[in-house]
Amino acid sequence: MKTVSIILVRPQIGENIGAAARAMWNFGFNRLKIVAPRDGWPSIEAERNSAGALESSVKVDVFDTLQDAIKEDHYVYATTARPRDLVKPVVNPQEAAKAIALSELSKLPEETQSHKTAMVFGAERTGLTNDELSLCHTIVTIPTNPYFSSLNLAQSVLLLCWEMARAREPEEEYAPLHLPTKNSDFATQEELENFFSRLETELDNGDFFKAPDLRPTMMRNIRTLFMRAEPTDQELRTLHGIISALKKAGPA
Amino acid sequence: MKTVSIILVRPQIGENIGAAARAMWNFGFNRLKIVAPRDGWPSIEAERNSAGALESSVKVDVFDTLQDAIKEDHYVYATTARPRDLVKPVVNPQEAAKAIALSELSKLPEETQSHKTAMVFGAERTGLTNDELSLCHTIVTIPTNPYFSSLNLAQSVLLLCWEMARAREPEEEYAPLHLPTKNSDFATQEELENFFSRLETELDNGDFFKAPDLRPTMMRNIRTLFMRAEPTDQELRTLHGIISALKKAGPA
Repeated sequence: MKTVSIILVRPQIGENIGAAARAMWNFGFNRLKIVAPRDGWPSIEAERNSAGALESSVKVDVFDTLQDAIKEDHYVYATTARPRDLVKPVVNPQEAAKAIALSELSKLPEETQSHKTAMVFGAERTGLTNDELSLCHTIVTIPTNPYFSSLNLAQSVLLLCWEMARAREPEEEYAPLHLPTKNSDFATQEELENFFSRLETELDNGDFFKAPDLRPTMMRNIRTLFMRAEPTDQELRTLHGIISALKKAGPA
Repeated sequence: MKTVSIILVRPQIGENIGAAARAMWNFGFNRLKIVAPRDGWPSIEAERNSAGALESSVKVDVFDTLQDAIKEDHYVYATTARPRDLVKPVVNPQEAAKAIALSELSKLPEETQSHKTAMVFGAERTGLTNDELSLCHTIVTIPTNPYFSSLNLAQSVLLLCWEMARAREPEEEYAPLHLPTKNSDFATQEELENFFSRLETELDNGDFFKAPDLRPTMMRNIRTLFMRAEPTDQELRTLHGIISALKKAGPA
């Protein structure tokens, strides 16, 4: 099952979008999400450079923000050359590809929806913002020549698609990494956002943010912690229950 | 020792030559040979598309024929999507990359020159002729989507350079996820226990456990969730802060 989507955030050059789509379809990936393309969409340059992939096979959706784009995804990878000052796991393309192949193979109950993964790429030159990185679970870094590390956008997409396609090949057995989740499914990003937004409101009510300028950093750190746990939807309901109970417990 | 040269035979589009040079240098390869480029050499389009690689680092030589270009090489790989009707070994990129890495490592007598390998790529669309293929020892085929197999020239160069760079790295075991933790350390079990115990007390105060016999299960599930996140001690302090703030926020 091809449950991985490629997300390009604020891509600037239509040719790169087309080349990325071509690279995706070369390895069987056909879900492309584009966040705020600089020159709008559709793009003649993109179509011209996709060698037919955009016309025939790759499905494109356009979003205003990364947050909108990942709403239905369960797990989000951010590709960046520069791991920022966030406590996130950092993996290389092979490791990401193996983990994704495993999550696709994991035996979830038939009636649950499949596990959806997003692979996010930032804009040419500027990459992803810290806020965007904080929406992602794990960072993928492509090891390159330290003296010349900047990969072309479509080349980065190609490498990840190549590795993901290879990891799907049944040549090797890998130990299952993903957690068996009984009757529940992983929470979607939308469910997580609802939780974070409720938590932030209640933390406000409880004067959690003493210094207003630290609020974004604190919320990013809190997100990072909970996303690392990859809660199921059942666990997210428990977390909501915890918020309600703690409020009811009242001040010491 | 970087003894592999990339050879482009009759490339048509300057942009592709530039993108190929960029991809080469991204992975530390700096010997490019070009055979009969359609639009001549040097090429402004190539330079513009190389992100500086052609100006600073990649050395280019131009030849009239493939035969001339490989005169000093010891072993020649031809990349093609379509294995022709020739009796040649066919390998995938990983296999070629491993063999090349081995040939570089082999202990040649000091006085002999190092082993030189060429990786040959044909023209966009037309590829390599049968005569050119017959000059090569082994064919490299990149496995692609059978319905959309045509890779962009620079993308093919990228994949081979990526695999060759990886094959040079010392064999490593599937590395455990690396969590950078800034200035803080992972929480100790004692710190975790203190947190769980405080949380349980406050959940009690907020009537969280409706059914007493379910309490052990619920607490186990909550533990599981937080332990999966492997909090740092800093994050644990944040979680304590969250408990206090939620209590202060009070019932809705």
